[in-house]
Amino acid sequence: MHRVPLQQKILQENERIAGELREAFRQHGVLCLNFIGSPGAGKTTLLERTLEGFPSATRVAVLTGDIQTEIDARRLRRFGFPVRQIATGGTCHLDARMVQQALGEWKMAELELLLIENVGNLICPAAYDLGEAAKIVVMSVAEGEDKPLKYPSIFFKAELLILTKSDLLPHVPFEGEIARDNAHCVHPGLEILQLSCITGAGLPEWQMWLEHRRAALNVRAAAG
Amino acid sequence: MHRVPLQQKILQENERIAGELREAFRQHGVLCLNFIGSPGAGKTTLLERTLEGFPSATRVAVLTGDIQTEIDARRLRRFGFPVRQIATGGTCHLDARMVQQALGEWKMAELELLLIENVGNLICPAAYDLGEAAKIVVMSVAEGEDKPLKYPSIFFKAELLILTKSDLLPHVPFEGEIARDNAHCVHPGLEILQLSCITGAGLPEWQMWLEHRRAALNVRAAAG
Repeated sequence: MHRVPLQQKILQENERIAGELREAFRQHGVLCLNFIGSPGAGKTTLLERTLEGFPSATRVAVLTGDIQTEIDARRLRRFGFPVRQIATGGTCHLDARMVQQALGEWKMAELELLLIENVGNLICPAAYDLGEAAKIVVMSVAEGEDKPLKYPSIFFKAELLILTKSDLLPHVPFEGEIARDNAHCVHPGLEILQLSCITGAGLPEWQMWLEHRRAALNVRAAAG
Repeated sequence: MHRVPLQQKILQENERIAGELREAFRQHGVLCLNFIGSPGAGKTTLLERTLEGFPSATRVAVLTGDIQTEIDARRLRRFGFPVRQIATGGTCHLDARMVQQALGEWKMAELELLLIENVGNLICPAAYDLGEAAKIVVMSVAEGEDKPLKYPSIFFKAELLILTKSDLLPHVPFEGEIARDNAHCVHPGLEILQLSCITGAGLPEWQMWLEHRRAALNVRAAAG
């Protein structure tokens, strides 16, 4: 990320398209969530468990970003919901235009939930609004407690921190309380959930978070 | 990373400074290694174990890059060797100018080994030459086998892949052979070491790699 005029122009153009996306999501009552985390944080596995838990009539779709490969889209398609891979071909983040283009053929009116898995990177994706209702930062307990302090931007911008791979806690030097303090030092209101996609611990709380968020959207839509 | 003319100019300017650094390292017989990996891959812990293993007379210095904080420099200074933190303040990678500036007051003639820990990011740092003799990609077994395919650039450019946290192998779904095949698919000649900084397994092989690399430099220096 270079703080030069061109970069500002790119970000401004991104804001403009993200604004269009946000308005379209609002009009159609689509809850859009942008999952951001390092490579190996467990984003795809979390989405697998999330899709698996949905009734088959759920109107959910997934966009998954990677520099190369269709690996994640293949993994996520097994659950029968529409999934599209965005291969950025070198770019270190998703931007709003990529999302707009990938959504192209899908009918927004047929969706109620759009899950976007960003490129594995704790830094650059934080700067690019995708029109989402919320950013969710995903971090595994194997990564260490200091990450919120070292990479503050995404922890500041996210609404929710999901600490994944909690089954590894007995085997890694991770102090959950220090991690939480660090996260709240950067972002006092940050919600935090801890879960394991292997044991299933914490998944019900995550599903409840998602339900609350969807219900809140519907209340707002009914009121508007 | 935007593939636009400005980005090309930035990379060209980086190449120029990296060339100066490489020439200075060559003149003074300094082996410079650039460690690149995701947040939480275990780069700092690997450097801790590496410094710990050196005789106190070793002429080694460390530059450690992060967006924010002096956490890593504080950890690494405990071993008595010179360490300097580069806080990039938002930039997602180190560049050659940052290295040149950070080296400023150090006398190159007093060094024989310079270890550079890049910002935690498996993508952007791969594009920025720091004048190093070799890039080393660091990846933990908790990250999954598919990373070389998804983030090919750094695996292609690195001379060595260090698979860290091997003590977690009984607890994570990581198929070492698949990971190695994926890495060699992207880069057939890539050397691979696996180690655990907790149990110490694999550390002697890493120390030997480092010794061979330093010896090779000295042979070349003597011949030149």
